[in-house]
Amino acid sequence: MSVVPDTSRNGVDTDTMFATLDLIDAQPELAKFQFRATNHWIAGAHNRSTIKGFYAAGGEDTTRTGEFHLDAGEPAILLGSDTGPNPAEYLLHALAACLTTTIVYVAAARRVNLTSVESTLTGDMDVRGALGVDDEPRNGFERIEVSFRVTGDAAEEKLREVVERAQERSAVYDMVTNGVPVAVEVATD
Amino acid sequence: MSVVPDTSRNGVDTDTMFATLDLIDAQPELAKFQFRATNHWIAGAHNRSTIKGFYAAGGEDTTRTGEFHLDAGEPAILLGSDTGPNPAEYLLHALAACLTTTIVYVAAARRVNLTSVESTLTGDMDVRGALGVDDEPRNGFERIEVSFRVTGDAAEEKLREVVERAQERSAVYDMVTNGVPVAVEVATD
Repeated sequence: MSVVPDTSRNGVDTDTMFATLDLIDAQPELAKFQFRATNHWIAGAHNRSTIKGFYAAGGEDTTRTGEFHLDAGEPAILLGSDTGPNPAEYLLHALAACLTTTIVYVAAARRVNLTSVESTLTGDMDVRGALGVDDEPRNGFERIEVSFRVTGDAAEEKLREVVERAQERSAVYDMVTNGVPVAVEVATD
Repeated sequence: MSVVPDTSRNGVDTDTMFATLDLIDAQPELAKFQFRATNHWIAGAHNRSTIKGFYAAGGEDTTRTGEFHLDAGEPAILLGSDTGPNPAEYLLHALAACLTTTIVYVAAARRVNLTSVESTLTGDMDVRGALGVDDEPRNGFERIEVSFRVTGDAAEEKLREVVERAQERSAVYDMVTNGVPVAVEVATD
């Protein structure tokens, strides 16, 4: 007998989830979100992003009270001093985190109780591209491999369907596989 | 009169940088790198990545002694409890960090002393896609806007050329704008 109320599954309040989906379906203008990061250079490969404000559901968020600070770096072989994960490692984390959360939400919606979600991601890069030594290799990863282990109280087939649906809906998986238009503007004073 | 030795510019050891570029040019097999992240789900939108090991320059790295831990989350409106930046915000950070480090390295190579590099990134998303309410909006950001402010001891034109070259060489900028093949495999036991 489970002591978890029906409205919470995998740590997700499913009553709130379905109410949110109904609301956004009825008022699509509430679906316009904007996320943001500001970054400043510290020294060498060390820079830091601050993340707090975002726009959601018709207004500027007021619920997030604290700032998140993320430090980036490079290891010695890429001329840094390991002040943080490097940017490509952060991209792997973003992808892992988004697929995982989407798996958890999809499972909650489908009444699948998960017991574990673990993943290992690898990205292969020929650094001649990013270092400007050769124009042939691309700058970024040639490929990313994601290996998930997902367990829960459902048949293997159902667990696999949850992961497939998560790939179809993950925001970062979409961006990393399909790309996003990026506009860069520069001020110098 | 500067007291910074010629071999350090913007916190980058340029002697080591040029030696690294020469070595990789001479032995391209040393340019094969692999970066990695492992992630495990904690509860709801909370999951954590661990980042440490990587393959570089013909062998497994032994210089990075500590693990990095990155916590992801979602704000309340996306059914989380703000246990960390959300995955899409991490992607903005990855992009900001990579462009910034690439600007700093390109400037060092071109003998430009930078005094500041700051950026603000925004990503616009219609969350009906990722939430599965509507198939029309894409899951990820429709667009990302990056606004840089770069200052240093060079003419505006030279600073702009540094940023343009950084866009041409940034690993994460390449991946986010062009996409990367991602292979996902799943185990359920």
